[in-house]
Amino acid sequence: MSPVYLDNNASTQVDAEVVQAMLPFFLDQFGNASSMHDIGTAAGAPIKTARRQLQALIGAKFDHEITFTSGGTESVNTAILSGLDTVPGRTEIVTSAVEHPAVLTPCAHLEKTHGVKVHRIPVDHHGRLDLNAYRTALTHRVAIVSIMWANNETGTIFPVERLAEMAKQAGALFHADAVQAVGKLPMDLKSTAIDMLSLSGHKLHGPKGVGALYIKRGVPFHALIRGGHQERGRRAGTENTPGIVGLGKAAELALECMDEENKRIKSLRDRLEKGLLERIPRTFVTGDLLARLSNTTNVAFDRIAGEAMQSLLNRHGIACSSGSACTSGSSVPSHVLRAMNIRHGTALGAVRFSFSRHNREEDVDRVLELIPGIVEKLRDAVPGSRGHAK
Amino acid sequence: MSPVYLDNNASTQVDAEVVQAMLPFFLDQFGNASSMHDIGTAAGAPIKTARRQLQALIGAKFDHEITFTSGGTESVNTAILSGLDTVPGRTEIVTSAVEHPAVLTPCAHLEKTHGVKVHRIPVDHHGRLDLNAYRTALTHRVAIVSIMWANNETGTIFPVERLAEMAKQAGALFHADAVQAVGKLPMDLKSTAIDMLSLSGHKLHGPKGVGALYIKRGVPFHALIRGGHQERGRRAGTENTPGIVGLGKAAELALECMDEENKRIKSLRDRLEKGLLERIPRTFVTGDLLARLSNTTNVAFDRIAGEAMQSLLNRHGIACSSGSACTSGSSVPSHVLRAMNIRHGTALGAVRFSFSRHNREEDVDRVLELIPGIVEKLRDAVPGSRGHAK
Repeated sequence: MSPVYLDNNASTQVDAEVVQAMLPFFLDQFGNASSMHDIGTAAGAPIKTARRQLQALIGAKFDHEITFTSGGTESVNTAILSGLDTVPGRTEIVTSAVEHPAVLTPCAHLEKTHGVKVHRIPVDHHGRLDLNAYRTALTHRVAIVSIMWANNETGTIFPVERLAEMAKQAGALFHADAVQAVGKLPMDLKSTAIDMLSLSGHKLHGPKGVGALYIKRGVPFHALIRGGHQERGRRAGTENTPGIVGLGKAAELALECMDEENKRIKSLRDRLEKGLLERIPRTFVTGDLLARLSNTTNVAFDRIAGEAMQSLLNRHGIACSSGSACTSGSSVPSHVLRAMNIRHGTALGAVRFSFSRHNREEDVDRVLELIPGIVEKLRDAVPGSRGHAK
Repeated sequence: MSPVYLDNNASTQVDAEVVQAMLPFFLDQFGNASSMHDIGTAAGAPIKTARRQLQALIGAKFDHEITFTSGGTESVNTAILSGLDTVPGRTEIVTSAVEHPAVLTPCAHLEKTHGVKVHRIPVDHHGRLDLNAYRTALTHRVAIVSIMWANNETGTIFPVERLAEMAKQAGALFHADAVQAVGKLPMDLKSTAIDMLSLSGHKLHGPKGVGALYIKRGVPFHALIRGGHQERGRRAGTENTPGIVGLGKAAELALECMDEENKRIKSLRDRLEKGLLERIPRTFVTGDLLARLSNTTNVAFDRIAGEAMQSLLNRHGIACSSGSACTSGSSVPSHVLRAMNIRHGTALGAVRFSFSRHNREEDVDRVLELIPGIVEKLRDAVPGSRGHAK
């Protein structure tokens, strides 16, 4: 039986069309895009096309607002450091308690080594941002705000357009970590106050090792990686032509099928969620059910360790996640669920199922078939207490 | 007639075996290497293999001394910033006047914005480093030395093992930019005092968008890109599994055929060089002819603009370079040849031909056939002065 992949927020299968688009740039048009001969300059037009494909997906006003990077984490690090560096006299960062480590780790580092004050805005039990705390934090000392568009673990969507407007009023730059949102939500950045936005290829059926940073025209910017003149001096290093072309193609495909696929993916997700709630007592869905990615469900089971359930599902060929990929591997409870005051890992465990356009009805059927037995097994294992696989 | 590619110092064709090795990681083993399910953990072993393949190529003592990055420029930036950050009380950098922009640009930035003193050691007419100046610069104020192993434009090899020993005596860290040397020169880093070393996949028939930073065990290190725990906390961001696997395979292939191919490549290069010198009067080879990469020749022609010759060769299907790819595109004379006091771009132009194992005898024949006519044309165009195409 073929495996069921329901961990698309961790990474997605590269679309076959994307791989096809990339291949010529390994073997034929392999030149350095900065070279002056035909084999080099041949990469120029495809890179421009990719930039425009990405521009269309996120609704940027200009294609040169897109800078290609090596991925989401580099983009986020670049945006935050640039924000601190370019806004004179302001030394504070505002972010949320439920950001990805790509945001939280550099912020903690800056706090520790550079005396930067970091405001981590809390969320409520449904993962919604505390707008009052946000408003209070937005003083004239804040250089940059970095808030995620959608949460990787729960799919909760933050009102980034509104948050960006508020940041703008306060004279701070606004960066959106949109790694989980790009390709899943329609975007029209030109009509927002968002100054910078990070995205990653491999979350939208593009390749790993490539991403982009949107930098609105006119926003002050300092590069993180310096060297040659690539990317208009905003990101040095030989252009990763196959990766960039792949990301562009992935963006094009995402835009083409977004409306239709979002509906289909949502119906799969909703059927899984409904089926789980019906079959398993003492189970609930975490996150903001009114503002949530249509591909994500994070289900909390009473008296189950998320890791144990994930591990048993894996043995049955089902790939899902407890916590995000970037924090899993340890048994530390997810910082996202802790911030939501959901007692993960003690008496309650959470499992994330995240869909993509490659999923089918049968995938949902397989999970719904298997999970009652798994829950029974785990809850029986340690009666009266949590089941723990390891 | 198929094009002749003699610009392998700018970028190389990805080896077909490398592409084959990468492909499964786009479509089948596409999981996030940090995920806990089989589709994720499947990436662990291939990444470990790649690390060992690279370890073997550069003669590192431990595989965990290899940190994968997005390429040479990121590696170099990381090494320099880490060196400055981790050596307390030392605030100076020593480098050379002929480094790649990946070194010179961040150094200039640090000089301008952080008050870091940068010593740019000069070279002589043959591109050899001024060892007296180097010795003088190596005071107790130097945090890190960054010197290239081999020059990208002329192929001149610097005595990095000796330079690293001298840096060690002075209590400074030593970083080697080995982007042009890895895969071309035998290396045994464990027997050297080199602390850090940068390399890039696409210079050795591997993919673009991936590289590595060697960090000798025990050397203090601060990450540039922070986030998840990937690469033992030394470089955050989802592992670029296909890229890493491709780089590993490229390293394996380079090691296997290095001795044999270096001889063959050298004989091609030497035949081209000899043929050019015989056919074209007032022509000489730049760089250190006693210590030079066997794949590179940088030929200076009196009364010829390098750009013009490169452009005419290109029209005849021959890809070569005037200056490096990262500085070409402008008509500013190469900083390398200027440092060597070779009057490039005024009365004298230089063209770089760089070979790889994909080159054949016919490639040399084609250039030797074409070039006398091109030189005649260019020298006739502006009698008594330089020819200038544009």
